[in-house]
Amino acid sequence: MRVYPSIKDIQEKIDLALIIINRQAVPNVMRECAEKGIKAVIVVADGFAERDEEGAKLQNEILEIARKVGMRIIGPNTVGVANPEKGLITSPYEADYDRINPGGIAICSQTGITHSQAFPFSDLNYGVSKICDFGNKCDLDESDMLEYLKDDPSTKVITMYLESMRDGRKFLEISKRVTPEKPVLVLKSGRTKEGARVSASHTGSLAMDDQVFDAACKQAGILRLERFSELFELPKMFALQPLPKGNRLGITTITGGAGVLATDEAAKFGLSIPTLSPETVEKLNSIFPNLGKPIMDIGPAMAVISDFVTFLSEVMETILSDHHIDCLLNIIWAGPVEGWGESHVKVYKELLRNFQKPIATWIYGPRVPIIHDLTHRIEDLGFPVFVEVEMAVKALGIAYQYAIWKKKGET
Amino acid sequence: MRVYPSIKDIQEKIDLALIIINRQAVPNVMRECAEKGIKAVIVVADGFAERDEEGAKLQNEILEIARKVGMRIIGPNTVGVANPEKGLITSPYEADYDRINPGGIAICSQTGITHSQAFPFSDLNYGVSKICDFGNKCDLDESDMLEYLKDDPSTKVITMYLESMRDGRKFLEISKRVTPEKPVLVLKSGRTKEGARVSASHTGSLAMDDQVFDAACKQAGILRLERFSELFELPKMFALQPLPKGNRLGITTITGGAGVLATDEAAKFGLSIPTLSPETVEKLNSIFPNLGKPIMDIGPAMAVISDFVTFLSEVMETILSDHHIDCLLNIIWAGPVEGWGESHVKVYKELLRNFQKPIATWIYGPRVPIIHDLTHRIEDLGFPVFVEVEMAVKALGIAYQYAIWKKKGET
Repeated sequence: MRVYPSIKDIQEKIDLALIIINRQAVPNVMRECAEKGIKAVIVVADGFAERDEEGAKLQNEILEIARKVGMRIIGPNTVGVANPEKGLITSPYEADYDRINPGGIAICSQTGITHSQAFPFSDLNYGVSKICDFGNKCDLDESDMLEYLKDDPSTKVITMYLESMRDGRKFLEISKRVTPEKPVLVLKSGRTKEGARVSASHTGSLAMDDQVFDAACKQAGILRLERFSELFELPKMFALQPLPKGNRLGITTITGGAGVLATDEAAKFGLSIPTLSPETVEKLNSIFPNLGKPIMDIGPAMAVISDFVTFLSEVMETILSDHHIDCLLNIIWAGPVEGWGESHVKVYKELLRNFQKPIATWIYGPRVPIIHDLTHRIEDLGFPVFVEVEMAVKALGIAYQYAIWKKKGET
Repeated sequence: MRVYPSIKDIQEKIDLALIIINRQAVPNVMRECAEKGIKAVIVVADGFAERDEEGAKLQNEILEIARKVGMRIIGPNTVGVANPEKGLITSPYEADYDRINPGGIAICSQTGITHSQAFPFSDLNYGVSKICDFGNKCDLDESDMLEYLKDDPSTKVITMYLESMRDGRKFLEISKRVTPEKPVLVLKSGRTKEGARVSASHTGSLAMDDQVFDAACKQAGILRLERFSELFELPKMFALQPLPKGNRLGITTITGGAGVLATDEAAKFGLSIPTLSPETVEKLNSIFPNLGKPIMDIGPAMAVISDFVTFLSEVMETILSDHHIDCLLNIIWAGPVEGWGESHVKVYKELLRNFQKPIATWIYGPRVPIIHDLTHRIEDLGFPVFVEVEMAVKALGIAYQYAIWKKKGET
């Protein structure tokens, strides 16, 4: 790589500058960027408002430099952005992480922990539209990101990890315009007094009252998350599947136990297990005795069925055709049985052609590599697979809640 | 394998019979077992009380046969038991699953989903003392298992998945005797009306009122779980680490964001982030500027430190030596950096020698295989690693709650 003594020595026009340098030197580099006419800067350097009084002063200083010339800043204290479609990843970590598949999920965060050096995007075959760590957000913040992503054609669903808000009113107002078009999922920490105190020393920002934030989310149709893993798991539902038209959940499961757990979980999100139509019950019972229930325990059949693909395809098509069913949870087992994974892939290929009802899948089994492999193959066909049975149910549950919100906005 | 027309044709003494046959034929086989003097039978066959009226009758019939001769039954509708120390796995599935490491965790369940064909025990290097799926529990049930495991020297911690209880009062009474000695973790489904209905068709048993069960757990010191994955994750804390002597949590983290999430979570379980002693603060600040806080964000130091092992060892030893700290959460990053994993293993080896305070670890990073590998290596040293940051905090949280219960029992 060619190295220049100053950014002013570069002849070409520059679209974006990354500043990775001791904090003391940042203002001077910013001034040079301003003279060079650069309009966008990502300040990766840390040690600003999150560190001490001196850092806070420096942060104000760089903001003033930027404002004078209409330059915009992401950061400081950030690893920056990623745009997999264009192959841009600003994170200053190893090049080996620079593999993110393009997809429909945007991830915004007040920390580097959702970036390419932290999450195994590539190993999990995860499809991303944009990533932004806004760090201390001295200039651009969560509201700006939301506004930008609303009109970003690659983004189908927006997820955010927030510790604080720069302007709650503005965020709420923008959210109200975004959520009727795209689902917005937010994980907010600093909920407790102690958490808020830690947050202040992490990104130099003040946390807001958690109950106020909760009420704001409900008003603005924001889907609030509870755990870190949900940030990556739940958006898959929106990126890959249609919204359910109602709350009636069918379950096909190879284990009755997981069916019971799923049924309990469904109730938390307003999903309900309906009574099937008499025709569906009859059809299911003709496929296998005693199968004609909304929670179809296919375990007993598995022991005796020879043609698994035809059997499961018939079962799933029957349940998906019932007008009492709006969405489906499929619980499958991935074991080291010859042709087993291939059989499931075939079933999903059939479904792909015929139905517009969302399906969430949970795979369990005795071998981690087999589960991973089957997960990739099913997700490649557009069907999200979740790490936990409860997560799969929640994905359908919040898709249903979002469908209600969206419909309300349309009428 | 040699095949016999009847079990009576076998000359040798038989300790245990597995019955895997059409339900109609089970009573006759049971009678032959009784004649042969077999005292223990696992009825793998299904189609009993969980199926229909006829199945319920058959279930009563086999129970009567057993009672007459003092024979005990596990099942029917079960995959049976596992005893990794003895190499016994009765699950009738593929031999390839028959690899479970011996360890201190007992897993009891009203379903086959916690057995060797369902959970990747071997891939996750998970240490098990006993597994029992009691299925329809026509004879032996959760209370018997609890009583047995109380005195089983291999078992350090007992986990259970329950849909129903055969005798709530008995279970409560036995639990009260077990929990002062060994922690008992229970995941109970059939919490909702719909879940209970599904459960009835799964194992033919009636669910109990969830609030009654909750109150009973509190009375008996049972730790109640919320999600399926917790059944496998949380016991690791008890199997591998000492109990905390108090609720004061220290956190070392390579990312401030995860530190904030962990702090929020800690509050849910009564863990608190204490003020460190002045000596500890001074020592930490001398190791790296601004580090002297109970949540030690080692991220900034990582960018400039050359000897990582010495640095992290010093930080962790300093915090573990502080008498204001009872337990520690360590959040580490596993990246494809030469010698990185080895460095962490060295730090844990140091800790192993010096401290008797429990440590929970969360690893994140850009590569799934690297995370898995480092997880195994750290767990081999006796330090549990959890799949989620919230899970790691909860593990410490319930260890603290159990420590209080145990202490109460001792006084």
